[in-house]
Amino acid sequence: MTSTLPDLPADHPFGLHHLPYGVFSTSGSPDRRRVGVRVGDRVLDLAALASDARVSWSTALQQPSLNAFLAEGPATWAAARAWLQDRLTDPGHRPDVEPHLLDLHEVRLHLPVDVADYVDFYASEHHASNVGSIFRPDGDALTPNWKHLPIGYHGRSSTVVVSGTDIVRPLGQRKRPQDPAPVFGPSTRLDIEAELGFVVGGATQVGTRVPVGEAMSHVFGVALFNDWSARDIQAWEYVPLGPFLGKSFASSLAAWVTPMEALASAHVPLPTQDPTPLDYLHGTEETSYGLDITMEVRVNGTLVARPPYRTMYWSPAQMLAHLTVNGAALSDGDLFASGTTSGAEPDTRGSLLELTWNGTEPITLADRSTRTFLQDGDEVVISASAPGAGGHRIGLGEVSGRVLPAR
Amino acid sequence: MTSTLPDLPADHPFGLHHLPYGVFSTSGSPDRRRVGVRVGDRVLDLAALASDARVSWSTALQQPSLNAFLAEGPATWAAARAWLQDRLTDPGHRPDVEPHLLDLHEVRLHLPVDVADYVDFYASEHHASNVGSIFRPDGDALTPNWKHLPIGYHGRSSTVVVSGTDIVRPLGQRKRPQDPAPVFGPSTRLDIEAELGFVVGGATQVGTRVPVGEAMSHVFGVALFNDWSARDIQAWEYVPLGPFLGKSFASSLAAWVTPMEALASAHVPLPTQDPTPLDYLHGTEETSYGLDITMEVRVNGTLVARPPYRTMYWSPAQMLAHLTVNGAALSDGDLFASGTTSGAEPDTRGSLLELTWNGTEPITLADRSTRTFLQDGDEVVISASAPGAGGHRIGLGEVSGRVLPAR
Repeated sequence: MTSTLPDLPADHPFGLHHLPYGVFSTSGSPDRRRVGVRVGDRVLDLAALASDARVSWSTALQQPSLNAFLAEGPATWAAARAWLQDRLTDPGHRPDVEPHLLDLHEVRLHLPVDVADYVDFYASEHHASNVGSIFRPDGDALTPNWKHLPIGYHGRSSTVVVSGTDIVRPLGQRKRPQDPAPVFGPSTRLDIEAELGFVVGGATQVGTRVPVGEAMSHVFGVALFNDWSARDIQAWEYVPLGPFLGKSFASSLAAWVTPMEALASAHVPLPTQDPTPLDYLHGTEETSYGLDITMEVRVNGTLVARPPYRTMYWSPAQMLAHLTVNGAALSDGDLFASGTTSGAEPDTRGSLLELTWNGTEPITLADRSTRTFLQDGDEVVISASAPGAGGHRIGLGEVSGRVLPAR
Repeated sequence: MTSTLPDLPADHPFGLHHLPYGVFSTSGSPDRRRVGVRVGDRVLDLAALASDARVSWSTALQQPSLNAFLAEGPATWAAARAWLQDRLTDPGHRPDVEPHLLDLHEVRLHLPVDVADYVDFYASEHHASNVGSIFRPDGDALTPNWKHLPIGYHGRSSTVVVSGTDIVRPLGQRKRPQDPAPVFGPSTRLDIEAELGFVVGGATQVGTRVPVGEAMSHVFGVALFNDWSARDIQAWEYVPLGPFLGKSFASSLAAWVTPMEALASAHVPLPTQDPTPLDYLHGTEETSYGLDITMEVRVNGTLVARPPYRTMYWSPAQMLAHLTVNGAALSDGDLFASGTTSGAEPDTRGSLLELTWNGTEPITLADRSTRTFLQDGDEVVISASAPGAGGHRIGLGEVSGRVLPAR
């Protein structure tokens, strides 16, 4: 597959084998958000191209989020991708395409999804073990339920923001075990969590279960996700009903959503699951797989971790099957995230909590400053890449944010 | 204040002093959902009446949910209520009103709010103490944080259903401590939670705090709420990240939302809060109050509990101020619920978990059958009333649901 565009080499991280979707506007029409596709270093106004061609799904692209396109379902997602790849490889279509290509600096990127329900999982065994060892040093690292079900909880949909949004340090209550009473103030233990977010389409009705073998037909794509966490607020509030304000001030989602089809070469078998999960979580390698996505976490430009998504214990299909097994409905625009991605080695851990072992082992940045948790002004960038078709790697872009002082 | 309508006595639970809002359609136009108000035993098509009068907020009433009206904010809510009361008391307006009155049996009621973010609190000290005593008999009944902050967690917005919707018994994993491994199947410990739901309007931006003194200006009204709970699923899954599938299969919201204005006579002081909460939770009696609402819970017609909302420890204003103190945004259509309402006496407990003390003390229904948890076919109806203006009580209607067998 060779592009007709001269500036799109086959090994470009946003080449023909990738084609992630996003939502953009231009300075000329700032209020008209619509769906675009990243092609190399440019943005293709897919809403306009599809409208010109009068394809049946073009109306869904004229919306300010991907939600209407997500509602179209997997047959349309596949048809649109094939149609688009044809437009970009058939020389006869080059005159149709070129007028709709915009330079990246001409567009403003927006949150790609109007998030319906947002669930955060806890699918990394290394992460869960590290957290258990830090907070329950005398107990088992994993809770008894951990290997039987993908633990998850609902988060606050309205605080999911697009990559690049500044993150205001949250205020809240904290109390260490040795403190006599809680105090109020800016969080002193502001952290990140390097995750993947999975974008859902093909709504279901309340009372319907999605079997693990069909789960991936509801997953449109993947975007990098940073679940900012205030560890001090979280530690004081979370027993017995789980994380609340320690998480709900901001979660950042990448602007570009990589279709699952683009990751076909990145499927990998899951780690051995022992004990064998119950039947409803038991898929095949074809339907319930891991993803060979390598993430990189940078603080102020310094690479501090390379979390390997391939080490995650639970598959996206298992997470989705579990999420709906009680009859919970899926909505177009649902988002579920993996939980922190951490590998076995110390430099593959996806949170500062783990990288600094609860603040006891500071990390050193390139400017020789050290960090336990984030300081005001710090910028965190999480990027990733994965094997794509034809032996070329695809880049998943980035999710970034800078910490502003508390208000 | 006397109505011009002959069949609307001053002491009617849905009289002039109440006027709750809902969303309805008729068999003649089943797809046209719009906003109505319950007036006595009839439904006033407020969307049509306001449109005839060309009031500025009439467009917001032509929508399939209250959300657009919620976005108008408290000045419009107050103006609309005053305008409506004028229409119902001035004889000159009677000819305008009467064509838009529909019999209750002519309308179908829908979920009144397109729920944005949904948070469930845990604001009853009696409930939290009972649950603590049941599940941690050797420990403190309350967790250390309980009297310092209103504990809450996010729930699944898309599974909030309108009163009257059948509730399918959920499937899921459960494992008792003595079991060697989890099993999968229909929940055997299906329960209710008698709560109030608070409907939010006047959206805020991420990074904004709502002070406790301003919190109630974002609360449009109250509706009865039943947070159906699968205790066996919940008990196995909830450590460490909180309730998930044990709650996310269904939560029922009453069809009629009572404006906070209608409850002005129901304000009561909070129970003594000791220790004194931190400043951001510290309101005055005018801004942070309890509500003298008495609920009744019936299973298959038998009254099993009369939970007194006036005993709740945390006020709605405190819950909302806490919810946003970290900068979390409010959306029009947010819903927060109180958590189970339980009083001090055994017959005022708002869940079967408490009423049967974890299934060890079955309750007896009028047909002489006994219950620990709910059986298939059981119907639960929660109703409530409160002091209204002029010495008349207002009725908060009901939230109901019948249990269907697992699928």
